[in-house]
Amino acid sequence: MISETMYELGSRRSSIRELFEYGKRAAEAVGAENVYDFSLGNPSTPPPPAVTETMLTILKEQEPCAVHGYTSAQGAYSVRKRIADDLNARYDASLTADELYMTCGAAASLCIVLRALTAFPCCRFVTQAPYFPEYKVFVESMGGSLTVATADTDTFDLNLEALASCITPDTQGVILNSPNNPSGVIYSEDKLKALASLLTARAKDYGRPIYLISDEPYREITYGKTVPYLPHLYANTVICYSYSKSLSLPGERIGYIAVPNTVTDADRLYAAVCGAGRSFGYVCAPALMQQVAAVCSGMTSDLSSYRRNRDTLYTALTDMGYDCVVPDGAFYLFVKAPGGDAVAFSERAKKEQVLVVPGNDFGCPGYLRLSYCVDHAMILRSLPAFQRLIETV
Amino acid sequence: MISETMYELGSRRSSIRELFEYGKRAAEAVGAENVYDFSLGNPSTPPPPAVTETMLTILKEQEPCAVHGYTSAQGAYSVRKRIADDLNARYDASLTADELYMTCGAAASLCIVLRALTAFPCCRFVTQAPYFPEYKVFVESMGGSLTVATADTDTFDLNLEALASCITPDTQGVILNSPNNPSGVIYSEDKLKALASLLTARAKDYGRPIYLISDEPYREITYGKTVPYLPHLYANTVICYSYSKSLSLPGERIGYIAVPNTVTDADRLYAAVCGAGRSFGYVCAPALMQQVAAVCSGMTSDLSSYRRNRDTLYTALTDMGYDCVVPDGAFYLFVKAPGGDAVAFSERAKKEQVLVVPGNDFGCPGYLRLSYCVDHAMILRSLPAFQRLIETV
Repeated sequence: MISETMYELGSRRSSIRELFEYGKRAAEAVGAENVYDFSLGNPSTPPPPAVTETMLTILKEQEPCAVHGYTSAQGAYSVRKRIADDLNARYDASLTADELYMTCGAAASLCIVLRALTAFPCCRFVTQAPYFPEYKVFVESMGGSLTVATADTDTFDLNLEALASCITPDTQGVILNSPNNPSGVIYSEDKLKALASLLTARAKDYGRPIYLISDEPYREITYGKTVPYLPHLYANTVICYSYSKSLSLPGERIGYIAVPNTVTDADRLYAAVCGAGRSFGYVCAPALMQQVAAVCSGMTSDLSSYRRNRDTLYTALTDMGYDCVVPDGAFYLFVKAPGGDAVAFSERAKKEQVLVVPGNDFGCPGYLRLSYCVDHAMILRSLPAFQRLIETV
Repeated sequence: MISETMYELGSRRSSIRELFEYGKRAAEAVGAENVYDFSLGNPSTPPPPAVTETMLTILKEQEPCAVHGYTSAQGAYSVRKRIADDLNARYDASLTADELYMTCGAAASLCIVLRALTAFPCCRFVTQAPYFPEYKVFVESMGGSLTVATADTDTFDLNLEALASCITPDTQGVILNSPNNPSGVIYSEDKLKALASLLTARAKDYGRPIYLISDEPYREITYGKTVPYLPHLYANTVICYSYSKSLSLPGERIGYIAVPNTVTDADRLYAAVCGAGRSFGYVCAPALMQQVAAVCSGMTSDLSSYRRNRDTLYTALTDMGYDCVVPDGAFYLFVKAPGGDAVAFSERAKKEQVLVVPGNDFGCPGYLRLSYCVDHAMILRSLPAFQRLIETV
């Protein structure tokens, strides 16, 4: 007499969350300093100072009923205006406040957009492996189905041949995530342009639009390379954003959806986004954090510690014989599992108190995701365990 | 190619939100002081001082990555423990942290519980008129149907005869809201006990449980009368709570679901609650506000201003000839529309810049909801308009 689907979803945690909870128990048992937890993308760098300063200023100077009151369902107008201005300045875009909808983070952004777009039975969404495993949960929860284009494991860039074979007349949207979780790769502009051409041609063939859903919480977490602004390459792009990573605020649940007016049926889609948010009980995004996002949009926490972690871990592991691509963004290494079986490796690693997520759920069996948004000293302490793990394959 | 259902939900705002947005535009046009907005339940009393003090202390003293990081999906254990302790002390209950699930407010609590409980096609939920209109949106969004028991317009207490006729073998749950939005009535213990007996007998007859879903964001907003703790009267009660009203934090989206272990299949339901939250992209409740709720649970903002507003408005309106029951809780008056047509009255009132919500969407045509969580001076300024409105019926 309880929803079996929801029971299943709630009792089988994601492998990431499972490891995270395991890590918390292990830390209690053997001491946090003896657990090497690379499981979760929980930023380890504090927010930019402006984040805390903004909160303190608001709390001290503004009238609390105004600060903490309901905003419009799509977010306070002044907040959306300021964020639109920031995006326009950074990406030479022309967004207005009315094309933005504030959300409780990237997962909310995605669920809302997917529900708004799930317009017919067997509505199909396509994504590129490796991909964030909750995409499957979200798409299927809305009544759609997710088709995964196999990875190009040489580069982890877009695999255009695989994508082309996945896109069919019942494809409503393509979900991309760049910089990518779990590979850290930034999709190249050339491949993105080729995908845009493919989608344009297919949409014309099928006589219906294909939406590009750009999930970009790691947009600003980069180490030199530029992340193309997708609406410039493909007009029918909807952006799902979160400040979780750029401002190190993952627990606060604040982000936005952008439906640029170049999108097919933009006004109707924006209204459907409002409807989908309402149908889930999202009322409005957290009010204080809306103001913080408005002030701090475009800032990032100090990325140098992530870069140092990346360089230390990448260099140490590849020196030991581990195989992985250099990640240009996000804070993950996607490492080929020594021995080939990522689940077996992850289980062996747990015995060394090393927590790494098997790539199976990311659509890439045989690979391991290591989140390096961790204490640098923990990386150094973990290296002997990684050495033992590769020696004993 | 966009979900029609979501488009409809997003383009036809709730009548409350519609008036709220109208009021904001009117305030820009004629000046905020000339608009008498009784549309929205947006608390007008600031949070208890401990709320802001707690935030300031956390922001100054705690490590920001820990403050703003992901918590467990069901909320930080320490937060749930502290809230359970508070509830146990206040209601002589025996909740544990593992029976609580932190949410983004009451709407989220309800949507999550409803999705977890919508277990079969044509799953029916019953509520008592007058009722919060979004119940219908939430229930139908999960694939269920809402049946409304007609109001007892003499008292606005439970209408047991009507409820009895609504409860059928496909009734999965009954949603109650006490203190009630929009009537302000606290359901009497006698009627609640009679409902509990009815549900127990029917559940036995049908050979399946009937869940009581207690939506209680106004639990602490009372003016003398006690609100019975429903799990003591009916074991199969799930609580949906929000700190929006008690702590004057409606924009911050923080609340909880309690699934006491006395509930049928409690462990499975709790897991399904976790699954439903996951399926909507709720990741975790806002982290800073979780800590605030833990510290401030059981506190209320200063209720004396609401009491004064209630007394002023109730006395003035009934003196003019308006008809309504005395509200013992929440911050609404539910007034019989002079002339009988609430929609027509509300439209006439708009011309006087008086914004009151017709009761039609609350399942009570012919009545008007007035939110008195407003500035006292606005109430006084509005009275001549109310006088004109009743004189010109």
